[in-house]
Amino acid sequence: MNTLNTLIAAPGLAGVVVADTAIGDVRGDEGFFHYRQYDATQLAEHRTFEQVWHLVLFGDLPAADGAQSTEDAAWTARTQRALAVDETIRTAVTQVLQVTPQADVMTMLRTGVSVHGSLVGDAALWDSDEPAKEQIALRTAGFLPWLVGAAYAVRTGAQPRTPRPELGYVGNYLWLVTGAEPSADAVRALSRYLCLTVDHGFNASTFTARVVASTGADLSGCVVAALGALSGPLHGGAPSRALDALDEIGSADRAEQWARDRLAAGERLMGFGHAVYRGLDPRSELLKRTAAELGGATAELALAVEDTVVAVLDEHKPDRPLRANVEYYAGVVMESCGLPRELFTPTFTMSRTVGWTAHILEQSRGTKIFRPSSRYVGPPAPQPLP
Amino acid sequence: MNTLNTLIAAPGLAGVVVADTAIGDVRGDEGFFHYRQYDATQLAEHRTFEQVWHLVLFGDLPAADGAQSTEDAAWTARTQRALAVDETIRTAVTQVLQVTPQADVMTMLRTGVSVHGSLVGDAALWDSDEPAKEQIALRTAGFLPWLVGAAYAVRTGAQPRTPRPELGYVGNYLWLVTGAEPSADAVRALSRYLCLTVDHGFNASTFTARVVASTGADLSGCVVAALGALSGPLHGGAPSRALDALDEIGSADRAEQWARDRLAAGERLMGFGHAVYRGLDPRSELLKRTAAELGGATAELALAVEDTVVAVLDEHKPDRPLRANVEYYAGVVMESCGLPRELFTPTFTMSRTVGWTAHILEQSRGTKIFRPSSRYVGPPAPQPLP
Repeated sequence: MNTLNTLIAAPGLAGVVVADTAIGDVRGDEGFFHYRQYDATQLAEHRTFEQVWHLVLFGDLPAADGAQSTEDAAWTARTQRALAVDETIRTAVTQVLQVTPQADVMTMLRTGVSVHGSLVGDAALWDSDEPAKEQIALRTAGFLPWLVGAAYAVRTGAQPRTPRPELGYVGNYLWLVTGAEPSADAVRALSRYLCLTVDHGFNASTFTARVVASTGADLSGCVVAALGALSGPLHGGAPSRALDALDEIGSADRAEQWARDRLAAGERLMGFGHAVYRGLDPRSELLKRTAAELGGATAELALAVEDTVVAVLDEHKPDRPLRANVEYYAGVVMESCGLPRELFTPTFTMSRTVGWTAHILEQSRGTKIFRPSSRYVGPPAPQPLP
Repeated sequence: MNTLNTLIAAPGLAGVVVADTAIGDVRGDEGFFHYRQYDATQLAEHRTFEQVWHLVLFGDLPAADGAQSTEDAAWTARTQRALAVDETIRTAVTQVLQVTPQADVMTMLRTGVSVHGSLVGDAALWDSDEPAKEQIALRTAGFLPWLVGAAYAVRTGAQPRTPRPELGYVGNYLWLVTGAEPSADAVRALSRYLCLTVDHGFNASTFTARVVASTGADLSGCVVAALGALSGPLHGGAPSRALDALDEIGSADRAEQWARDRLAAGERLMGFGHAVYRGLDPRSELLKRTAAELGGATAELALAVEDTVVAVLDEHKPDRPLRANVEYYAGVVMESCGLPRELFTPTFTMSRTVGWTAHILEQSRGTKIFRPSSRYVGPPAPQPLP
């Protein structure tokens, strides 16, 4: 290692700008994040998941000149073809998943996307033109809802269902998991959650996808790598744990003692606080309102517990206000829509795959492979062989 | 993004120290690299692959107090158990690989390691103690030789062979691919290549493995991610291309014209030059000697062509001496050992997996997740929704 001209970064590369992006940004101090030029929470409330998908992947919303918009209709048709997933692919992937029927869902997604890449003939980004890259990005992100449903089916000893693309991205997914045609309320609620979680800066999984893309590898390889990162407990695992905590609390009057006990034991409270947002997490605001609209026992408990826990946290750390983060109400919304807890992180993965594919395409237009330096801290070398 | 306290890194994080490591270092200016405290080329020439594996994973060579070394024997027995791979695992993975019999070998490795993780019950690093992490590291690296052989068998319509761990890591691998008991010369030559390619700084795949490990994910997820990075044409793909170039040249007297034509067309010469080593690549020196010792038509052609091409390169860029890099003689050595070209990168992957697993374990002892920043360069946000 050349010690001149090297720079020692903060642990985890905190605060180090590693690339330019036009996909979006997180302005933590302002409690604001956006996809391309639009406020992400506004998109989540007023646009479909498919429209956000188009925006993130291509840079603009499909032209929305009323119900007859040609571009919007063409894009919807294209996403429906991706959501349909060829029967031969579904059969082959089911066969693979059935080899490890007890694997956890995130591991099945990793295996499934890897096999899907082979089945659709995914080629190196380095050797592909833009239309080919866009097509594989679309097919891979469109494959995920079926794959999550299929993994859950295999785990529970059932047969994976046939997609119903006419229900749209969100409705089709709820159908694949629950086997019932979802209510408009559930589709609207889950759509908001999915739209809010498409992209969020250079977190570990998005960064992983970009590092792999910088080698010119195939898009599936980049997504598989990102799936590994997202499966890490320090990254993608919180939505179900926040809900497990709600179960443990049981009723609103026990929330205060629960929070005090945890803090006294030096534990983190799952669902509260975020590395980037010091105050309000803009995602949790919309999801909180969505949960309240959906109603039900879980939502009511969550709303009451949040008030109590926040009061305890404010007393505990007055200088650093901690609030409910995206995971807290995300879990409530997903549970209220009928999703089992083991699918919370996989559901998050599904929307984030849309973001990853956009980042992979953007990174693939650069030519510089990631190759950082390290600092050797072991015994001096060379020493003679013993 | 907070614009205060941020730092804009060079593209690809060139020259940015992203972590401390005691596993090894590359001192490019000195033409020197080491694993732990020992010169890597000395290890490659004087130690077995198993001994280097122990060094890289645990920090020391097995105590070598003569042929009766208890530690060395115990480690050999442990690696043999890993190389054996349970029959149930071999059957299950073969079944998975047969679903995509035309996939390229690197893709099969990605899928195979993912499934292997499920089959052996690989758990999150975050929830594992050191002995459990070491055991999964050992099993995964020990699984690779069989997996590469099995992928090649499936691609060529054959049945994967049963491992012969008593032949050692290198001999067992040659047996699995060729179906013949390898000569001592071939084992020695390939062992040198494999020892030389266990680790080499924070290249894209090693860095990928560490980023994923920083999330606390399972070791298989980290290795699968690294496999994706190594499959990228800008990273792991050169050994077979250098040999393809030799085929194209055909005979030594055509090398000069070939090199001049390529340079005139502005093309890179595969097999020459390296991002880190400006002069001699220490790996290629030992491999060149190894190729010369093995002899044969390919080795002789390679030696003659190198002299000619280097002379042309020196004339073309007198200020930047380019020499044969590790890929050039690596290809010659692998071909002389009877390995098919489509297994060159997978063979490299096999030894590098040993390095990755050491990096994954080292990274997993830290607690800081990689989460760099980005610079938003798209249209200003927020703009009102259309």
